[in-house]
Amino acid sequence: MGDHKFYMDLAIQLAESVIGQTSPNPAVGCVVVKNGQILGMGPHLKAGEPHAEVNALKQAGEKAEGADLYVTLEPCSHTGRTPPCADLIIEKKISRVFIAGLDPNPIVTGNGVAKLRDAGISVEYGLCEKQAEELNKFYFHFMKTRKPFITLKTAVTFDGKTAASSGDSKWITSSDARYDVHRYRHRHDAILVGITTVIQDNPHLTTRLPQGGKNPIRIVLDTYLKIPIESNLLNDNAAPTIIVCGKHANEKKRISIEEKGVKVKKMPTEEIEIESLLNWLGTEKILSVFVEGGSTVHSSFIDSGLFQEIVMYMAPKLLNDREGMPAFAGLPKRLITDSIHLAFKSVERIGQDIKLIAEPTERGE
Amino acid sequence: MGDHKFYMDLAIQLAESVIGQTSPNPAVGCVVVKNGQILGMGPHLKAGEPHAEVNALKQAGEKAEGADLYVTLEPCSHTGRTPPCADLIIEKKISRVFIAGLDPNPIVTGNGVAKLRDAGISVEYGLCEKQAEELNKFYFHFMKTRKPFITLKTAVTFDGKTAASSGDSKWITSSDARYDVHRYRHRHDAILVGITTVIQDNPHLTTRLPQGGKNPIRIVLDTYLKIPIESNLLNDNAAPTIIVCGKHANEKKRISIEEKGVKVKKMPTEEIEIESLLNWLGTEKILSVFVEGGSTVHSSFIDSGLFQEIVMYMAPKLLNDREGMPAFAGLPKRLITDSIHLAFKSVERIGQDIKLIAEPTERGE
Repeated sequence: MGDHKFYMDLAIQLAESVIGQTSPNPAVGCVVVKNGQILGMGPHLKAGEPHAEVNALKQAGEKAEGADLYVTLEPCSHTGRTPPCADLIIEKKISRVFIAGLDPNPIVTGNGVAKLRDAGISVEYGLCEKQAEELNKFYFHFMKTRKPFITLKTAVTFDGKTAASSGDSKWITSSDARYDVHRYRHRHDAILVGITTVIQDNPHLTTRLPQGGKNPIRIVLDTYLKIPIESNLLNDNAAPTIIVCGKHANEKKRISIEEKGVKVKKMPTEEIEIESLLNWLGTEKILSVFVEGGSTVHSSFIDSGLFQEIVMYMAPKLLNDREGMPAFAGLPKRLITDSIHLAFKSVERIGQDIKLIAEPTERGE
Repeated sequence: MGDHKFYMDLAIQLAESVIGQTSPNPAVGCVVVKNGQILGMGPHLKAGEPHAEVNALKQAGEKAEGADLYVTLEPCSHTGRTPPCADLIIEKKISRVFIAGLDPNPIVTGNGVAKLRDAGISVEYGLCEKQAEELNKFYFHFMKTRKPFITLKTAVTFDGKTAASSGDSKWITSSDARYDVHRYRHRHDAILVGITTVIQDNPHLTTRLPQGGKNPIRIVLDTYLKIPIESNLLNDNAAPTIIVCGKHANEKKRISIEEKGVKVKKMPTEEIEIESLLNWLGTEKILSVFVEGGSTVHSSFIDSGLFQEIVMYMAPKLLNDREGMPAFAGLPKRLITDSIHLAFKSVERIGQDIKLIAEPTERGE
C-alpha cells in the first residue's frame, strides 16, 4: 500500500467497473491522495456528466490543496459538455499529477499535460499505461481508425462446431458462459448479427444480467431486407435497431420497417461491404461492435481483416459430426500458411467450459 | 519440510520422472526418513530391475532400522521377477510405512499392507492417493479393464481443422507443441495411426526428444493391408511394429510384410473392431496406446466409447476454410445433446499454442 502503483491500480479498478456505461467517452478513474491518506476517488459515470477528476476532487473538498492526483487518462484541456479538468486541477492547487496514458483524442493529446505543467504542477505519465489502454481499447482504437472496435464471438463444441448438421445448436455452452456473453453485450455500443441468425432464432439481442444492464444498439446485416416483419427485433422496442441492406433491397419493405420506428441503412453497393459499413458506424459514434455471427458474417469480417478480437467459448462436448456447422465458414484455402495469424490473449475456464480470447497478430512460427 | 506430505510429494516426483520406462510395471518412488533426515530414496527404473523400496533401502543401509518409509504404491507381497518388497521392509526393521494407494493388481491389493501389519509395522495409506493414481493411470486402468489406456491426440487450427481442404497440414502447431507430443510418445507403450496417415505422411512414429527417448510399439490400422511395402514403418527397424488388418486382407501381402520382420495381426472380423483390438493388445501387455489419428481412426475410438483422454493442441491460426478437414469426422448427429460429454482436465499454454486435456465424463449441463 501507499505506493504509486497501488493508487493507480485503484483508479484503474474504478474505471473498469464502469466500462460500457460511459461511451462514447472513455472509462476513467481518479484517486486523490495526501500523506498516504485517500481524500477522494471517483469514476466518470456517463457521457455528459462530470469527469472522474471532478468527482474525486469534489469528494476531497478543500483538503485537496497540495495533494497528489492519480488518473487513468490525461485530463482534458478543452471545453466539451463539461469544463476542462486541467483547469480544475490547477484551481484546486494539486501538487503532483500521475497519469497512466495520454488521451489519444487529437484535441487533447499532450495538451492536458502541457497545461498542467505550465501551471507549475509536476506531471508524470506512463504508470500502468498498458492496463489503462486495455480498459479503453474501444476508445483508443476508434481514435486511431475512426472505425468501431470489432469483437467476434462464437460458441463451439470441443470439435469446433456451432451446430449439428441438423441445425440444432441448443445449448452448446453452459449458463456461466452465456452469462459472460451478456457482460460483453453490456460493454459494447452495438451488437451485430446476420439475417440468417434473425430468421432462425428470432432473438432479442438484449443484455440480460441479474441487475439488467445496458442494451446495445442492434445491427442486422440483411442485404435484401428479408427480415420477417413480425421479428422481435422490429417489434420489442428494447433498443435502437439498424437494419443494413444493399442498394437493391426492396423499397416497400424498407418503408414498412421504418414505419415500425426501426432505422434502415441502405448501403450504396449491391453487397454490404464491411469497410464502408464500419466507416459509417464510426460517423454514428459507435465505438464498439460485438459480432455474434453466424459463420458467414464472421467470415466476412475475417476476410476483410477488420476485427480486433475473437472470443471463443468452447464446451466440453464432442459432437463428432463431420457435417456439423463450422464456426468460421470461409472459402477453401490451399495452405495452412494461408491462415490468419492470431495470438492467444487469454485462456481461462468458465464453469465447465473454457473461454479463449485471441487477437490478430504478426505472423508467428 | 519434514511433514508426511513433503516426503510423499518427493516420492511422487521420483516416480513421475520415470513414467514410460517401467512399463508394464508401474512407476513408483520411495523415500526412507529417520528423525527428519532423508536416509535413502529411489524409483523403480525398469521392469525386471529392483523395485523403488529396494533402491531406497539399499541407499539407507543399516541406518534404516526404525525409520519411516514413504512409497507411492503398496509394496508387493509376492515373488515376481524380484522378491517381495514387504519382506525386505520387515527384514530392515522399518517402523512405519506410509503408502499413497493400494496396488490395483489383484495379486497384491491389500496383501502388501496385511503382511507388513502382521509383522508389527504401522501402516497408513491414502496420503496423496489421487496424484499417485494419476501418475500410474495407465497401470490402474489396465488392472481394472485388461485393456490399454487410450489417449487420442490431435492438433488443430483455432477453428478446429487438422488440414486445409487441399490436404495441406504442415505445420499447424509450433515446435514447442510438437516437442510435447514426443514426451507423450515416450510415455506410452504404443502409438497407433490409420493407414491413411501412413500413406499420406510416411511417418517414422519414433520418439525424438533432445536426449532420445523410448520408441513406442507402432500399430497401424490397415483393414486391407494397403500399406506401401517401401514405407518407413516397414523398413526403418526403429521399433516393434504391428499392422492390424481384417480377415479379408491379402495373404500374399501379409507374408511379404512379415518377411520384413514386421508383425501382422489378422482380426477375425471383416472390419477392425476397436473393442476386440484393445482386448488383444491387453493380452500383449500393452498398457497404453497414443492414438495420433487421422480423423477416421479417432472417430472409431469415440463412437465405440473406448478412450480415456483427449489431448488437443490448438494453434492460433484461423484457417477460415469451410471445407477444411475436421479433427473428428463421425457420422452426422441430430442434436447437440447427442454429443459425448467430456470434462476439461487441464488447459494450458504451450509456446504460442494452447493444450487442452479432456476426459469422458458423466453428462454435464
